[in-house]
Amino acid sequence: MIDRLCEAIIEKQNPTVMGLDPLLSYIPESLKAEAAAGCDDPFEAAARALFLFNKGLIDACAPEVAAVKPQVAYYELYSWQGMRAYQETIDYAKRKGLYVIADVKRNDIGSTASAYAKAYLGETELGSCKKPAFDADAATVSPYLGSDGIRPFLECCEEYKRMIFLLVKTSNPSSGELQDKVTDGKKVYELMAEATTAYGESYHSQYGYSNCGAVVGATYPEQLAELRKKAPHTFFLVPGYGAQGAGAAEVAGAFDARGLGAVINSSRGIMCAWQKEGCDEREFAEAALREVRRMKAALLEVVGGKIG
Amino acid sequence: MIDRLCEAIIEKQNPTVMGLDPLLSYIPESLKAEAAAGCDDPFEAAARALFLFNKGLIDACAPEVAAVKPQVAYYELYSWQGMRAYQETIDYAKRKGLYVIADVKRNDIGSTASAYAKAYLGETELGSCKKPAFDADAATVSPYLGSDGIRPFLECCEEYKRMIFLLVKTSNPSSGELQDKVTDGKKVYELMAEATTAYGESYHSQYGYSNCGAVVGATYPEQLAELRKKAPHTFFLVPGYGAQGAGAAEVAGAFDARGLGAVINSSRGIMCAWQKEGCDEREFAEAALREVRRMKAALLEVVGGKIG
Repeated sequence: MIDRLCEAIIEKQNPTVMGLDPLLSYIPESLKAEAAAGCDDPFEAAARALFLFNKGLIDACAPEVAAVKPQVAYYELYSWQGMRAYQETIDYAKRKGLYVIADVKRNDIGSTASAYAKAYLGETELGSCKKPAFDADAATVSPYLGSDGIRPFLECCEEYKRMIFLLVKTSNPSSGELQDKVTDGKKVYELMAEATTAYGESYHSQYGYSNCGAVVGATYPEQLAELRKKAPHTFFLVPGYGAQGAGAAEVAGAFDARGLGAVINSSRGIMCAWQKEGCDEREFAEAALREVRRMKAALLEVVGGKIG
Repeated sequence: MIDRLCEAIIEKQNPTVMGLDPLLSYIPESLKAEAAAGCDDPFEAAARALFLFNKGLIDACAPEVAAVKPQVAYYELYSWQGMRAYQETIDYAKRKGLYVIADVKRNDIGSTASAYAKAYLGETELGSCKKPAFDADAATVSPYLGSDGIRPFLECCEEYKRMIFLLVKTSNPSSGELQDKVTDGKKVYELMAEATTAYGESYHSQYGYSNCGAVVGATYPEQLAELRKKAPHTFFLVPGYGAQGAGAAEVAGAFDARGLGAVINSSRGIMCAWQKEGCDEREFAEAALREVRRMKAALLEVVGGKIG
């Protein structure tokens, strides 16, 4: 639900999303040793290490960030044990009051899209009961297959009061290969932004944003500012801050006059702050919090010192 | 590796792929009861039932089909326990000599795309060792993010002798919303087909196909035939047969003169054959085999009675 996200941003006075993309190489040796103790299975040990790392980051940063965004590729990489760590991470973050964006970029059609939607945003039918599988507040969705691939997610959002972020203009160098192609006088990403607006049209929320958000990369500041103007009811999830090269100045155009309208994700910048600072590895969580505070200060400055 | 797939098709004289998309409602009650015996956790019970069902289908149909295509959404739906069933299904199918296409439609950039690629087609670095997570022969990939999202998969294919199928023209009614848009005088799906050809250009195989295939829906027979002509080195994965409405006549244009060049997927048609036939549920695997044989006969007919 977009209102919950807006409220969390206002409460924390911080539009930062902490990306949780934990490669084993980002994790302190002492944590990995703790995770591996008495464990024969390397996937199991890795999965435990992922969760311990995320738990430390969440414990330290939950008072200061509005949301977390665990990127599922870094959990699938550690097999089903990694997916258990994904589920545990989502549950733990929610218990700590954080808004959870499952960065899954799922895309399929009909009943398959519906299965994905239920898996990340709804509930699974299990004979006589229903239970959530990966119980996130929001999920990212890829739009190549058209509306058949998106409506099942929106139906789930409606039923369970969740939201999606559709890929519109991604942060990578080659995003323009398809997304900047011109068709019917418009670029593909502009068409996708219009579709995003249309999908969210009937949705009404306290802060004016719909349950169909858009992913727009920080590495394209002009397009970000242009889309902010053209899509006033579309909330943005903005990757590309930090390790991908964009700073607060680049994302300034993503916000509305209240400092709302966007969340800015940093993954490696926060997770690997302890490596960048060169501090003791046992301080990984404190280093992450220091980076969150630096990012908060930089972002607050570009929105005029106050959100909401 | 595309040659292994071609050899399997020639050996079985059948371009059929058995889709393994097992919703609980497709599974016989007796199998679900067996799976739930002594099990308190409904996700665990469901995951056991998925695997038992798949195992029965694989045991019955492995002598007649070249490949299986487990669609991961139907496993994620059952949480990490479902993902364990996914891994078990892949491993079991490979032990039975089947070529396994992980239908995951993953898409991301840089190190995240690389994590997905390693998870499904390569190996995971686990400190002192490397192990495969979900050890498939091929995976489907979605192209919205451009080449940054595809090259990491191709690098993995190169290293581990695997292949990918890029979404080009999907089988759903709304696929044209983006895929049929005209830009630079060509439709988006044509551009994606050209990109697919370019990605596979340097790859040489015995049967003339590259390690970068394309997903083209059976529900668009004209485009299928047109792409077959334009992309002679691109192998097609063709969904949409059976439950989505296409038959053998619609996919005839997907094949080359040898009857190679495409695999045709049927999921519900095969998995739910026992429900459609109305036979005893204990015959679900035999009913699936009967449907596989019907499909084989129909497909062999359109390729002139012989493959290879």
